[in-house]
Amino acid sequence: MANTNHVTTKWLGEMAFESTNPSNHTLRIDAAPEDGGEGSGLRPKALMLSALAGCSGLDVASLIKKMKLEVDDFSIETVANLTDEHPKYYDRVTIEYHFHGSNLKEDKLQRAVDLSVEKYCGVMEMFRRFAELEIQTFFHHR
Amino acid sequence: MANTNHVTTKWLGEMAFESTNPSNHTLRIDAAPEDGGEGSGLRPKALMLSALAGCSGLDVASLIKKMKLEVDDFSIETVANLTDEHPKYYDRVTIEYHFHGSNLKEDKLQRAVDLSVEKYCGVMEMFRRFAELEIQTFFHHR
Repeated sequence: MANTNHVTTKWLGEMAFESTNPSNHTLRIDAAPEDGGEGSGLRPKALMLSALAGCSGLDVASLIKKMKLEVDDFSIETVANLTDEHPKYYDRVTIEYHFHGSNLKEDKLQRAVDLSVEKYCGVMEMFRRFAELEIQTFFHHR
Repeated sequence: MANTNHVTTKWLGEMAFESTNPSNHTLRIDAAPEDGGEGSGLRPKALMLSALAGCSGLDVASLIKKMKLEVDDFSIETVANLTDEHPKYYDRVTIEYHFHGSNLKEDKLQRAVDLSVEKYCGVMEMFRRFAELEIQTFFHHR
């Protein structure tokens, strides 16, 4: 597999951009109306949180399959605090893993989360360099 | 303006996820077929590069407007090297700003790029904490 990622981000005029992805899907970026945009696309900074949750979520989804676990629903809530001064970056990030189901194996699901957080998730590793991370797992039994 | 960003990323089954964004647009994430997915969505790690280029691109687009500069086309190429070992993160990132036009004011456009890179772009600040950055500006006169 290639060890580089290449993304092209093209200006569409005003505050809109189209950005490529190795999947060949593209995404549209735009600023909010209060920041001079038309709100016609995704806000870029929050894409960092989608990258984080997506990366770790794929690890966990893969482990759910490998460990043959039964999970009805699974979601990740990411809440990030922005610094007050420019450049505004995320200095504290809370990541909540929520599992729902009638037959949740808590120890194995916790192990899946731990493997992603500690070993596999490259985006988590990047976040660790600039933010204080708080990681929580919740089991919602049905 | 709120000083937190909150993103919810929900598992859709297999390796697909839907992630929210403060813009109220959503995005779909999926793994490549070779990684057990169906390629039906964006790959998460590369979203980091869209976040980076989008954040800085919005700064520059805003300054193009403020400085009343004439630019026909503007794009940002981001090329990131992944480490060999898990967790695989971006350790070197090249960011190329390309401006096209028949009346490009090189000094002002360079100033816009510098302001974003050095002062405004929060995603750039986050990348600086985990990667070696190489920043280049290209002027394509028509």
